[in-house]
Amino acid sequence: MQKRYLVTPGPTPVPPEVWRAMSGPMVHHRGPDFQEVLGRVLARLPAVFQTENDILFFASSGTGAMEAAVANLCSPGDRVLVASAGYFGERWAAIASAYRLEVEHLRYRWGELLQPDEVGERLDAAGDTRAVYVTHSETSTGVVNDVQAIAEQVAGRDGLLVVDAVSSLGAVPLETDAWGIDVVVSGSQKALMTPPGLALCSVSARAWELSTAALSPRYALDWGRAKSLAQTPAVTLVQGLDAAVDLLLARGLRAHHEHHLRLGRAARAGAKAMGLELFSPDDDRSAVVTAIRVPEGIDGVAVVRAMRDRSGVTAAGGQGELKGRIVRIGHIGYVDVWDVVAALAALELALVAAGAEVERGIATAAALDAFNEAVHA
Amino acid sequence: MQKRYLVTPGPTPVPPEVWRAMSGPMVHHRGPDFQEVLGRVLARLPAVFQTENDILFFASSGTGAMEAAVANLCSPGDRVLVASAGYFGERWAAIASAYRLEVEHLRYRWGELLQPDEVGERLDAAGDTRAVYVTHSETSTGVVNDVQAIAEQVAGRDGLLVVDAVSSLGAVPLETDAWGIDVVVSGSQKALMTPPGLALCSVSARAWELSTAALSPRYALDWGRAKSLAQTPAVTLVQGLDAAVDLLLARGLRAHHEHHLRLGRAARAGAKAMGLELFSPDDDRSAVVTAIRVPEGIDGVAVVRAMRDRSGVTAAGGQGELKGRIVRIGHIGYVDVWDVVAALAALELALVAAGAEVERGIATAAALDAFNEAVHA
Repeated sequence: MQKRYLVTPGPTPVPPEVWRAMSGPMVHHRGPDFQEVLGRVLARLPAVFQTENDILFFASSGTGAMEAAVANLCSPGDRVLVASAGYFGERWAAIASAYRLEVEHLRYRWGELLQPDEVGERLDAAGDTRAVYVTHSETSTGVVNDVQAIAEQVAGRDGLLVVDAVSSLGAVPLETDAWGIDVVVSGSQKALMTPPGLALCSVSARAWELSTAALSPRYALDWGRAKSLAQTPAVTLVQGLDAAVDLLLARGLRAHHEHHLRLGRAARAGAKAMGLELFSPDDDRSAVVTAIRVPEGIDGVAVVRAMRDRSGVTAAGGQGELKGRIVRIGHIGYVDVWDVVAALAALELALVAAGAEVERGIATAAALDAFNEAVHA
Repeated sequence: MQKRYLVTPGPTPVPPEVWRAMSGPMVHHRGPDFQEVLGRVLARLPAVFQTENDILFFASSGTGAMEAAVANLCSPGDRVLVASAGYFGERWAAIASAYRLEVEHLRYRWGELLQPDEVGERLDAAGDTRAVYVTHSETSTGVVNDVQAIAEQVAGRDGLLVVDAVSSLGAVPLETDAWGIDVVVSGSQKALMTPPGLALCSVSARAWELSTAALSPRYALDWGRAKSLAQTPAVTLVQGLDAAVDLLLARGLRAHHEHHLRLGRAARAGAKAMGLELFSPDDDRSAVVTAIRVPEGIDGVAVVRAMRDRSGVTAAGGQGELKGRIVRIGHIGYVDVWDVVAALAALELALVAAGAEVERGIATAAALDAFNEAVHA
């Protein structure tokens, strides 16, 4: 009977309208009922991706669509550049290695920002590069990279730009066409407010052209098969996404971005007010997930567990090398400031119980004040 | 306001208990709420697969799990045997070719039965074969192959046996361990009564061993990653499958099989009573989908459309070379004889309207009589 609050950076809370859209009855994927839903969501997703490129669906996790962006563009031995600074950036390198590509890996420490000029320099040094793979929002660290500046570096040089926007699409500005991004990969379960199992991908004309020559084996993840809906799609998740995109566009993409920016401010202000150190950068770009350092001597895994067990608040801990060292509060999708307030209060309680010295009782007010400040003050 | 009846061979109707299990709120896939569901369904799936082998989940269509069974077992240049007699059998060959395997293709005409002894002979002739890929229930034709006899041929010869049981698992007997099947692939959206987007696969110890040496590139579909749940699973679909397996095992696997057998009898009896010719074999093995020939001069595509538009009954037409030539009535999963009766009556109406000469008004009684006959009479 404990009420639950979900503030992980994915899966994220799903709005009731989306649950209702996914509540049946089952329809056949080739029939007119589903085709209507599919047509509607495909007609509106370009406004979310800010692109006129094709948008493809995959019945897969976001990782599947990342893999597709490797397999459909590259042949074994092709050189690619991966710029990474965390768990998901390194996933690009792991996928590229699995496909036996020659991986130039511009690897930053977890929590750092990708440096766009160094991407350009590395491309010049490497020469003859098929594609550049980067992460927009690095969910493992809370860092949102300056993809626009990276795109400027890639433009005019060799290679297509592929962006993992799994946790960023819908949450923070991403101008696919204006910035010149060839491939944008995303997933249903983050800012798009739909359960996991549906991945999306936008593909430029140039990327389509390259894909026809790419020799990496693929079948279910083949872009051409995805475009022609050759396999049974994840019908209920597409229905859910249709309802979610409806909600998102009814609010407006910019308003949705602004909401996330203010949630990020609230989370950071609250954490700082109780005397905690931020792990993710303390600026308005950090609008997806707020990573907070756990005080010295405190076990972050136990803190996350206590938040859930005592308070019903499911936050995320650290992944990989950050395990036990940070707590991550996600604020993407169907999240309002009161969820952030609950998460901060539960974090405070858990830290106090673990013996940490934190300033009590002021985080939530600080968060609300930060949320309510005018954005363009 | 038209009431709908879904009698396609997938997606199939989803029971209300399954919809409720998938109705939220969203939970985190690493948290205890989901781990409980996952543990429960993984503990009960062996009874459905009739195996003690590992069972893996994929956020994918059934095709993705088929692809995984190629990529995880084979290296480029490996010889494999594909025995096919329809759309989905040929998909094995297409996937194997995409992975640059040397494909021995024992290809039967669509609608034929795979001949187990010819599988053995072809294996002897080919020599040194990594794996044999066959289809249990060929959804495109309604044929259910004798996988037990095929397994006997493969046993003692070279190569593992991989079975596409996407539409058969749960509907007709499949004794994974007793028959010695290394890999069984299935999907959520057929006899397992759950929406599409979740695929399953059982993997024998021998198959695991081979997979460590297989050089085909894979990442999201890697068996090892699937076993360790390295990617975000399709949370809601796993919750739904848990409820569906509960229903299935509450009825009992054998009773579920018998129910399907009787539904197949009903569909065939009804079709024959109105004077139609069966395309799928007229025997008790045809318990998944009944394929019925459309009378000469009648357009099967228009018949399927009329069934839906006039009567609200969504059946399936023919795929590939059978397009326009057959109507397929699926009777797997959450289907009772009254759905079959409705489908037959709607088919009769559509055929009469199209000018076909059919015997009117007796199909449904014939179907009910056949359904109600004792199974082991």
